[in-house]
Amino acid sequence: MAAAPVWSVDPRTGKQREQVAVEASAEEVDQAVRAAHAARGALADRTVRAAFLRSAADWLDGAKDRLVEAADAETALGPTRLIGELARTCYQLRAFADIVAEGEYLGVIINHPDATATPPIPDLRRYKVPLGVIAVYSASNFPFAFSVAGGDTASALAAGCPVVVKAHPDHPALSELVAALLRSAAAEHGIPEGVVGLVHGFDAGVELVSHPLVAGAGFTGSVRGGRALFDAAAARPTPIPFHGELGSLNPVVVTEAAAAERAEQIGAGLAGSMTMGVGQFCVKPGLVLAPEGAAGDRLVKALTDAVSNTEAGVLLDHRMRENFIAGVAERAALPDVEAPVTPGNGGEHTVAAGFLTVPATRLAASGAHDLLLEECFGPVTVLARYADDAEATAVLSRLPGNLTATVHLSADEAAGEGHGPALIAEVTPLAGRVLVDGWPTGVAVAPAQHHGGPYPATTSTSTSVGGTAIERWLRPVAYQGVPEALLPPELRDDNPLGLPRRFNGRLER
Amino acid sequence: MAAAPVWSVDPRTGKQREQVAVEASAEEVDQAVRAAHAARGALADRTVRAAFLRSAADWLDGAKDRLVEAADAETALGPTRLIGELARTCYQLRAFADIVAEGEYLGVIINHPDATATPPIPDLRRYKVPLGVIAVYSASNFPFAFSVAGGDTASALAAGCPVVVKAHPDHPALSELVAALLRSAAAEHGIPEGVVGLVHGFDAGVELVSHPLVAGAGFTGSVRGGRALFDAAAARPTPIPFHGELGSLNPVVVTEAAAAERAEQIGAGLAGSMTMGVGQFCVKPGLVLAPEGAAGDRLVKALTDAVSNTEAGVLLDHRMRENFIAGVAERAALPDVEAPVTPGNGGEHTVAAGFLTVPATRLAASGAHDLLLEECFGPVTVLARYADDAEATAVLSRLPGNLTATVHLSADEAAGEGHGPALIAEVTPLAGRVLVDGWPTGVAVAPAQHHGGPYPATTSTSTSVGGTAIERWLRPVAYQGVPEALLPPELRDDNPLGLPRRFNGRLER
Repeated sequence: MAAAPVWSVDPRTGKQREQVAVEASAEEVDQAVRAAHAARGALADRTVRAAFLRSAADWLDGAKDRLVEAADAETALGPTRLIGELARTCYQLRAFADIVAEGEYLGVIINHPDATATPPIPDLRRYKVPLGVIAVYSASNFPFAFSVAGGDTASALAAGCPVVVKAHPDHPALSELVAALLRSAAAEHGIPEGVVGLVHGFDAGVELVSHPLVAGAGFTGSVRGGRALFDAAAARPTPIPFHGELGSLNPVVVTEAAAAERAEQIGAGLAGSMTMGVGQFCVKPGLVLAPEGAAGDRLVKALTDAVSNTEAGVLLDHRMRENFIAGVAERAALPDVEAPVTPGNGGEHTVAAGFLTVPATRLAASGAHDLLLEECFGPVTVLARYADDAEATAVLSRLPGNLTATVHLSADEAAGEGHGPALIAEVTPLAGRVLVDGWPTGVAVAPAQHHGGPYPATTSTSTSVGGTAIERWLRPVAYQGVPEALLPPELRDDNPLGLPRRFNGRLER
Repeated sequence: MAAAPVWSVDPRTGKQREQVAVEASAEEVDQAVRAAHAARGALADRTVRAAFLRSAADWLDGAKDRLVEAADAETALGPTRLIGELARTCYQLRAFADIVAEGEYLGVIINHPDATATPPIPDLRRYKVPLGVIAVYSASNFPFAFSVAGGDTASALAAGCPVVVKAHPDHPALSELVAALLRSAAAEHGIPEGVVGLVHGFDAGVELVSHPLVAGAGFTGSVRGGRALFDAAAARPTPIPFHGELGSLNPVVVTEAAAAERAEQIGAGLAGSMTMGVGQFCVKPGLVLAPEGAAGDRLVKALTDAVSNTEAGVLLDHRMRENFIAGVAERAALPDVEAPVTPGNGGEHTVAAGFLTVPATRLAASGAHDLLLEECFGPVTVLARYADDAEATAVLSRLPGNLTATVHLSADEAAGEGHGPALIAEVTPLAGRVLVDGWPTGVAVAPAQHHGGPYPATTSTSTSVGGTAIERWLRPVAYQGVPEALLPPELRDDNPLGLPRRFNGRLER
């Protein structure tokens, strides 16, 4: 049987552009994993790794025009957004180079012997070592930042782990291009090209997560696909960590007082956030608790005005477009659901942004309206109008885990009066990131970032953005009674590498 | 149907001592979990939590005589060992109180806005919050240190998580006693007694890991039982982290030069380690790679002398005794396996320590001898005699993950000559703790400790002993643009709690 072709498709027309590759066979997946495994040693040196990450950013920067053109041809996300996303991706690679160079992530802890402890403490020295080959499942919606050179790859390489990337079928040509650039960067530092493997095809992805030499996986995508791979990772004879970002509703609560103070500003901000990138963000606000009454009506009016003025957009692929059109139609048909601006078909290859409203009481108990509590990928959001705090709380209590939760407060509430503290306490259990008076779209790359949340937002307690994402690909090892001559330099008393560490209980920085 | 009785049994006679309780029904498990969940708020304050942990240690200390007597009656581990284990357990509770008070485990990271970053960084502040109710599955072999008040419970409470403990059936009366003492300590600080739940029964354990309000689990026990619970945790509609310690062979490599230098010392040390606690340690050395030839023969002789002089011992229960007797018999019957000291039946209620030898070549490829690479709980070890380094390496390459790996080196090798560095590099991928010239039994409670390892040693990359065990029960949350008045005090600029943190990139200690 001939291998299935992998086509690059233009989402603006639905037409095939070129054949990029063929889907990887089980043997080809095995070869890619073995090649990655063989490259581990070349990543062992932290100085080399940091330099490799910087070179990778340089190679991507250097190919900017070609990359943005290739990405736009396959995703229709447009040059402005893609230039920004590429810059973010390069920034992230360099940020991880800094993290590798600093070495705090190694978690060095040294205890000299202590005979007075119970039981006595021998000479113990602990740090973290790389897990091994990491499988990376690319997302469709961030062809740079959550794809071949994205956060999972950057953090895995930073940890010292080679990767095999399962390319997203929505941008296979770009994936090949980016992988080639990463390999060019690797070659500059004597690292074999197998350090970044790339495979295409659904079956190849399933094969990858089951490969005995794969030691962990990162995933960004749908609940359905992510859960299937999570289950496969857990069912292996030797289970592996599966760090998956699966889906998120990203609730927003607008208090009565906030709406009274600035309904127009909130409505316009919401319109911008929910339609950004044609609504194809994992942190798109998908459910907004807005008050009934005059202030809430002003918010609806502002949102209506702004969303009505949003141009129809092209989604990442035609299947998504069909799912969006069907999904919003099914939601709009529910009892008591209205569509001040109707989302759906925007023309032959496009979708129109819109939003729905529903009384919050409809979401307070299980039923057909539960569909409104499921993520709908694309430019739509749901406003649940609540009459009082109890109604809002009832809806919040029914939500699954989220990447983000946002509250919009009045000036007094933000200063700690009225609802402020209670609302923060109420939404913190729901999400990995809590925002006040902002919008969740736009995920900063920063040490304090956390991009993750209770299931199904993520399948683990880890983050896929920000410096601590490196922790996912490491495991601790303790050395007991190991003579100085045999210790890794990271664990020697005289600290030749100048690492931050905990030394006999004291934090040394 | 009447609930099944839970009996306390004397392992020295196999006779029932008293009925302690009945097995918990699904409703009773639900009640225990709900009571634990309701106690979360009372654990929220770090000062209260630290004081509670210290009180718990005080209550256990205060009941020392009663506890040791109760533990000995159900485990036959003897007062010396049990007094030491209780002291270790109290030390661990106090060590976690110190960790809670210091607060570095919170992982506080603060980023002020940075408009120059790509994309710009808003005000972001991140720390870790407790997961929720933790299910703790007690081990049989450490009735204090890995049971009701053991490392899982101590680290979960330290993190701010209430626990529901599934009692081990080998010491149900002790479990009730310890739980009552922990509740007395809780009451001193106004914490509801539900903060430490206790349930008995196999079915109750299965029910527990599936309960929607259980947010994580810690387990110490067998591969079979642990894997079944791990699978159940992964199969939940909302999967939860399952930190299980399942089994470990704990390989030891003795170099030719080390044996030549001190075969007698190594043989005697090995005998002490493998028979300690009647071989019922998860870190018992279960496979020893020893050289062929005169030096190796001296080691066998020393081991023979020491093990022959070991008194027969009582195992934790009669099922274990039967498994041990059958397990060693099956291993001893394999071709080319010899028993210089025959392990097995030691009398009506006891077992005799012993050890087996086998040519290393028998373990170099898959076959019937693979049984020798499986953990055998009790006072037995296997010496694999190797002719050259290649044979030793061939065996090491076939081993599953381990809690520990130990190498015994000559003085020159320990100084970095000959095999030393290569051997350390060879065993590090196999284990969570690497020892030189020591024995793995005796797991110190220390910040640098790591008690975990590649599967099946553990089902995660975490540790169940040492300060970093607290990390298992936390998840990060980031606050974006949250006004000072609404921020948790842990995340305020002026650092009112004096926490170690990363502030705008700088490590502050």
